[in-house]
Amino acid sequence: MTNTRTVELEGHIIDSGMMQQAMGIVMDLGGNFDIEEFDVGRQKDKTSYCRMSVSADDESDLQEILHELHQIGANLTDPVDAHVEPSPADQVVPVGFYSTTNHPTEVRYDGQWLPVEDIEMDCAIVVEPAGSTSNQNSSSSDDVVDPDAPDGPRAYTKVLNSVEEGDLIVTDEAGIRVKPPERPRDASGPFGFMQGGVSSERPSESLIGEVADALRETKEEGGNVLVVAGPALIHSGGGDALARLIREGYIDMISAGNGFATHDIERGLYGTSLGMDMETMEHPRKGHKHHIYTISEVIRAGGIEAAVEEGLIKEGVMYECVKNDVPYVLAGSIRDDGPLPDTITDAIEAQNAIREQAHQADMVLMLSTLLHSVAVGNCLPSTAKTVCVDINPATVTQLLDRGSSQAIGMVTDIGTFVPTLAEKILDESAE
Amino acid sequence: MTNTRTVELEGHIIDSGMMQQAMGIVMDLGGNFDIEEFDVGRQKDKTSYCRMSVSADDESDLQEILHELHQIGANLTDPVDAHVEPSPADQVVPVGFYSTTNHPTEVRYDGQWLPVEDIEMDCAIVVEPAGSTSNQNSSSSDDVVDPDAPDGPRAYTKVLNSVEEGDLIVTDEAGIRVKPPERPRDASGPFGFMQGGVSSERPSESLIGEVADALRETKEEGGNVLVVAGPALIHSGGGDALARLIREGYIDMISAGNGFATHDIERGLYGTSLGMDMETMEHPRKGHKHHIYTISEVIRAGGIEAAVEEGLIKEGVMYECVKNDVPYVLAGSIRDDGPLPDTITDAIEAQNAIREQAHQADMVLMLSTLLHSVAVGNCLPSTAKTVCVDINPATVTQLLDRGSSQAIGMVTDIGTFVPTLAEKILDESAE
Amino acid sequence: MTNTRTVELEGHIIDSGMMQQAMGIVMDLGGNFDIEEFDVGRQKDKTSYCRMSVSADDESDLQEILHELHQIGANLTDPVDAHVEPSPADQVVPVGFYSTTNHPTEVRYDGQWLPVEDIEMDCAIVVEPAGSTSNQNSSSSDDVVDPDAPDGPRAYTKVLNSVEEGDLIVTDEAGIRVKPPERPRDASGPFGFMQGGVSSERPSESLIGEVADALRETKEEGGNVLVVAGPALIHSGGGDALARLIREGYIDMISAGNGFATHDIERGLYGTSLGMDMETMEHPRKGHKHHIYTISEVIRAGGIEAAVEEGLIKEGVMYECVKNDVPYVLAGSIRDDGPLPDTITDAIEAQNAIREQAHQADMVLMLSTLLHSVAVGNCLPSTAKTVCVDINPATVTQLLDRGSSQAIGMVTDIGTFVPTLAEKILDESAE
Amino acid sequence: MTNTRTVELEGHIIDSGMMQQAMGIVMDLGGNFDIEEFDVGRQKDKTSYCRMSVSADDESDLQEILHELHQIGANLTDPVDAHVEPSPADQVVPVGFYSTTNHPTEVRYDGQWLPVEDIEMDCAIVVEPAGSTSNQNSSSSDDVVDPDAPDGPRAYTKVLNSVEEGDLIVTDEAGIRVKPPERPRDASGPFGFMQGGVSSERPSESLIGEVADALRETKEEGGNVLVVAGPALIHSGGGDALARLIREGYIDMISAGNGFATHDIERGLYGTSLGMDMETMEHPRKGHKHHIYTISEVIRAGGIEAAVEEGLIKEGVMYECVKNDVPYVLAGSIRDDGPLPDTITDAIEAQNAIREQAHQADMVLMLSTLLHSVAVGNCLPSTAKTVCVDINPATVTQLLDRGSSQAIGMVTDIGTFVPTLAEKILDESAE
Repeated sequence: MTNTRTVELEGHIIDSGMMQQAMGIVMDLGGNFDIEEFDVGRQKDKTSYCRMSVSADDESDLQEILHELHQIGANLTDPVDAHVEPSPADQVVPVGFYSTTNHPTEVRYDGQWLPVEDIEMDCAIVVEPAGSTSNQNSSSSDDVVDPDAPDGPRAYTKVLNSVEEGDLIVTDEAGIRVKPPERPRDASGPFGFMQGGVSSERPSESLIGEVADALRETKEEGGNVLVVAGPALIHSGGGDALARLIREGYIDMISAGNGFATHDIERGLYGTSLGMDMETMEHPRKGHKHHIYTISEVIRAGGIEAAVEEGLIKEGVMYECVKNDVPYVLAGSIRDDGPLPDTITDAIEAQNAIREQAHQADMVLMLSTLLHSVAVGNCLPSTAKTVCVDINPATVTQLLDRGSSQAIGMVTDIGTFVPTLAEKILDESAE
Repeated sequence: MTNTRTVELEGHIIDSGMMQQAMGIVMDLGGNFDIEEFDVGRQKDKTSYCRMSVSADDESDLQEILHELHQIGANLTDPVDAHVEPSPADQVVPVGFYSTTNHPTEVRYDGQWLPVEDIEMDCAIVVEPAGSTSNQNSSSSDDVVDPDAPDGPRAYTKVLNSVEEGDLIVTDEAGIRVKPPERPRDASGPFGFMQGGVSSERPSESLIGEVADALRETKEEGGNVLVVAGPALIHSGGGDALARLIREGYIDMISAGNGFATHDIERGLYGTSLGMDMETMEHPRKGHKHHIYTISEVIRAGGIEAAVEEGLIKEGVMYECVKNDVPYVLAGSIRDDGPLPDTITDAIEAQNAIREQAHQADMVLMLSTLLHSVAVGNCLPSTAKTVCVDINPATVTQLLDRGSSQAIGMVTDIGTFVPTLAEKILDESAE
Repeated sequence: MTNTRTVELEGHIIDSGMMQQAMGIVMDLGGNFDIEEFDVGRQKDKTSYCRMSVSADDESDLQEILHELHQIGANLTDPVDAHVEPSPADQVVPVGFYSTTNHPTEVRYDGQWLPVEDIEMDCAIVVEPAGSTSNQNSSSSDDVVDPDAPDGPRAYTKVLNSVEEGDLIVTDEAGIRVKPPERPRDASGPFGFMQGGVSSERPSESLIGEVADALRETKEEGGNVLVVAGPALIHSGGGDALARLIREGYIDMISAGNGFATHDIERGLYGTSLGMDMETMEHPRKGHKHHIYTISEVIRAGGIEAAVEEGLIKEGVMYECVKNDVPYVLAGSIRDDGPLPDTITDAIEAQNAIREQAHQADMVLMLSTLLHSVAVGNCLPSTAKTVCVDINPATVTQLLDRGSSQAIGMVTDIGTFVPTLAEKILDESAE
Repeated sequence: MTNTRTVELEGHIIDSGMMQQAMGIVMDLGGNFDIEEFDVGRQKDKTSYCRMSVSADDESDLQEILHELHQIGANLTDPVDAHVEPSPADQVVPVGFYSTTNHPTEVRYDGQWLPVEDIEMDCAIVVEPAGSTSNQNSSSSDDVVDPDAPDGPRAYTKVLNSVEEGDLIVTDEAGIRVKPPERPRDASGPFGFMQGGVSSERPSESLIGEVADALRETKEEGGNVLVVAGPALIHSGGGDALARLIREGYIDMISAGNGFATHDIERGLYGTSLGMDMETMEHPRKGHKHHIYTISEVIRAGGIEAAVEEGLIKEGVMYECVKNDVPYVLAGSIRDDGPLPDTITDAIEAQNAIREQAHQADMVLMLSTLLHSVAVGNCLPSTAKTVCVDINPATVTQLLDRGSSQAIGMVTDIGTFVPTLAEKILDESAE
């Protein structure tokens, strides 16, 4: 084995599992390691340091090992610049392009470590040299350029469909540093505790209490709370409680679909959701007709905001959004009826709107929707707090697997979760 | 087709679906029907009557058709006595024995229609001639003999393992009348509404309210409420609410397993359930040790009642059962630890205890346990009100499929269901 | 009760359950019925006829009852013309518009019963008077105008977003006849048998055999087979078998998403699906990088067809589609990467493409995708044979609930279903 | 923090995750650690060694930390003897008894390390001093006493209900060493790969191939294969394939319930399973009658073996078991009909029979039964290879969570899994 490179790991590398993963990767992929230096953090608040050389039978195996080590934060020791290559055409990446993780990342350019702006999974990194102004439209619509250094070199993510011919795209893994968030030191609080596990056999009321605490805390610290909601939230009777949370200022953004908004508005207009009377449940017969007519009426009014203003919509989640200036993104889907004029029917355009919300969110509640939660999750950095609630354990597992470092999964009934959450937040706040 | 017999249907045979089923059966099984008389109930409170002759190519096909027609309540017109045959040996039924439904049933014997006592699915019917006293130990342990006619002929169900050599077992289907309960006329109330459907997309809070109403009503009418409970009820934090319902007199019997009782007692002793602290959820580590030691302590005390009396058990569901004279059946299973001295480890003996409870129940809440709910459901007549609650839709569907005519299924979180139910029952009662 | 109208039911109205439903509707909604005439079909091949007057306390209740009766095929006796009203604006329907079922439907116009073209759930019906040519662009892109009567009046469905100002939209329910398909008389064959039930406890191999028979039969009769496929089909190893079925001419159309096509192409390019080696499963590490690069390469080539032609794509489902002129629709979604140039990102445009496929399909296999299956199902008439396969029982139940009259649901593993199906079809055909 | 103890970890403690877990435990439980010595294994085949002192604020916290460290294999350095205390009464353990893991375990007694015989989760350890013969009936019925040292001291597990007054029970954690199996070094093979994950999105056919390889390998090495089977295996059509595997000598033991055996026998007798014709699926109507009569006939014959001998049972799984001397345990349950005479109705007796099978098994296939799989899993050492197959992901997850170190979980259809497995085993063997 003559193919050898040296990597470093630093931080709480034992208790966060990084050492274990690194050794596992090398062995699973058929390589060898030689630990050259290992300084163990003797007490729990001391970090450790490890330098090891990694070797493999051929260069391609070694590259694969290094790729995997890189993903978990084991970086090459050689302080070289990242390789960049111009994109050969719009929406086309060069061979060997670097595909991002959702962890904080830095790129070495001209001897300088640049933080990668708007980090997000599965993107390319574009480097913009100092003074450059070409191709400046990043995939993110909010402007993150440091005002103090408008002409300094920058690095930012681009999704494939935003890549333009000539963009300088980072390739390989040299000159890139990834910092996966470390395991929370403090075991108290649900986010630490629930990591990596989902269960329906837990005391739901206590756990909802801890979510309420985390949400209140996020607001007190000035953070933004994003709710991703599916139509089941309305069917199961959780709409009033969510509307109340919006009115009281606990929710900053809503990400949903055409169905969610229509069910919510229909409920306000007719007291039904998909034709079912929400109070008496007596006449579940009207089927889709109310649904279609609700959409037609909102179209006639000119959209949701106009419908609120003309008095057509008088209550509900969308009503409170309009009244309290809480922005919402309604993303279209091929199973939609209508859709409402507010629904963004183009998937790319909808993704961009979702991306903008995700980049601003400090805490995300994913409530009974797999499709929208995955779309939001794709754009979230690994540092955002995430709560996934669904009655289907498979949905919760799938969402947690996507790699937030601070995530709670709850398999519970959305129709009792949201009212209980609202009660816990608002009653304790009132005290 | 020379094989022909005549059957009658009577009652709300169109709107209850009986006519449809009857015609479907004949056609599915390759027979023909000729409707000889059809008196339709012109208004909704009038019953209908149909007499039709059914024919098939050979006698065996005809018998199969008649068997199926019989199951749904289409009875042969010829008023013959039921055939009875002595059982050839203990636990052995004669060829062609009649296997019961869970619907009210009558057997014709000596020209008289005898109601079948303790009706239950999948049993044999034993006829006891007038004056007979042999083999009198029916499968049911409560004595249902009519005090006014101690020596009159009787008919009652026996499960296979209770059949004794010489028992007069009913065979074939002649001389038997089955009366499936009709569809509730009145559409209001959840039991009518929910029939045949299970969904997690319903307003949970309203539906729990209707269950609360039904339970309160059952108690007001002097009925018995049986709770069938699984360990998830304790894990998920529903124990306090169930204990409160028992203390307030809303629950008459509990059917559960060794695990349920142990988790409940462990929680009282240690504040943990399977080692998890129910308030803080902080130390989910002690594993099974508390669990085993809890059982050991109850064994040392001499059983649950003794442990309550010596002050070892001071709270919880089992505590309230002992203090409020609510009888409980703890049925053993091969996955049990211990078990507790109160647990009935023999499956047959446990079934008999469960059967006795089921025969007394007017309303049954099946809470997060498939095994125990199926065991109870097997012994229930189709007239008992049933509520099945589980977070797994497959469990709810399977339980509802077993044929109660008044059943609600809810796919929801038991950890929020029981507290919400208790609140709705107790708060409204307090008003 | 002075509000009274008369309705008729005709056909196999007892054994198909129509009488039962009709009576149930009247009673559930608080009305009364009086059966004026009832001619029962005495033998199984004779139809029945019922005329009944229906009354309710007020006109609005009566309208609701009539609405529900109409949905199941109980039509008003009075032979009046349908009401039509011009649409007040684009995408806006008049108050009281008629919302379609997916059953064959006729509209009475100028004393003539017009069949409604391209029937589909939840649409409006547009009537085009004789000689009219305005607003002729129906929601369907295939032209169904009767060539013999190009100027005769027509009626066809329009989804809400296709409605144009001035379209003559049918309102209320007068002058409309719906004919729900009757229960298949013949009990043999899986489509009859499985109706209304889904189970994982069935002999899978036999059932797959019956699906194979139905598919072969559909092809022999010149019918079109549409496959709706999700990415799990590729992950679970079913891709080769589907490709083989396409090559052998058993599949006429594919409806899928960006993910499905990308996984399929990635597998051909790299032998991986989402980075997992499909043979050895040894290195499930490359994550999304292959996935993104696959899309980039197809974009570079100019699309899937171009990539097949330049030799980039050499095998797989998409390859066989291109080689065998099997049209495919790839509908976009907000969780897509890329997307591929062939993906239709606008939800409305994608729905229109799906609608065109659905209207041509005689048999539909829905394989492991809820989103795409719902989208296709929304456009299917109730007469298309449907097979829904998913490992999640909830998905199968939800799809079957949408009302195909000839549907099989199978809860099974797509990774063994497709290979077994291909084997059964191709091996038996080879004999 | 004056409460301090010293523990050692040895082996592949970094890459197996032991160091990470150990540090996590100390921190989660509020303690501190000081790493006194750390010798890292520099290459992948070198083991590491760590000695660290652990401290906590009070002794009880420290004990809890030490308890948890112990469970993962971090043992106290002080080479003291284990504490033993006599059991105060039958089925009662002393305070602070040591509750076993399912990992290989040693107890220090009289300065000697004794391996604990028949290791199994959640048991007490009984020490029998040299020369002692009292209380020798361990919970296991197979005799494991070392023939060379019949009078040496022994240590073995006892479940709670086998504990007898005066048994010397190990308490606390001093003098006990646990050796959790280490992560398989070699990444090839499904058992290594699948650890800790369950998914329905995998190439099922390849994975079944790897299970087939493992099973064939186990047999070649002279190991025992135990099949744990639920009734769904028969319903879904997998019975023939399992019978064939038994006939060909690949299965050594069967663990099932009354329902499994009855369905299997019913299918042989009537071609039905719970009344459904397995070939044509045409007449799913006979309900439970065949089921009950099947049991009655076997009772009449005198049991399964007698029924095979008198020619009543002519095919199927139970038939092959009798013909090929494959022992079976049929454990009773409260939902059973009958039961068959072979069914062990007492839960404790059934557990003992299951325990005996589990202790002999080298590979276990858990096929579509949660109840029986949990019961078997409770008795398995962590060294047995386990394959869990169920269509319900929750069942698979729950079974894998119970801690086998070599486990595969597959979410797939048992009705296609067993035939495919049999084909892969028997066809490749035939080559």
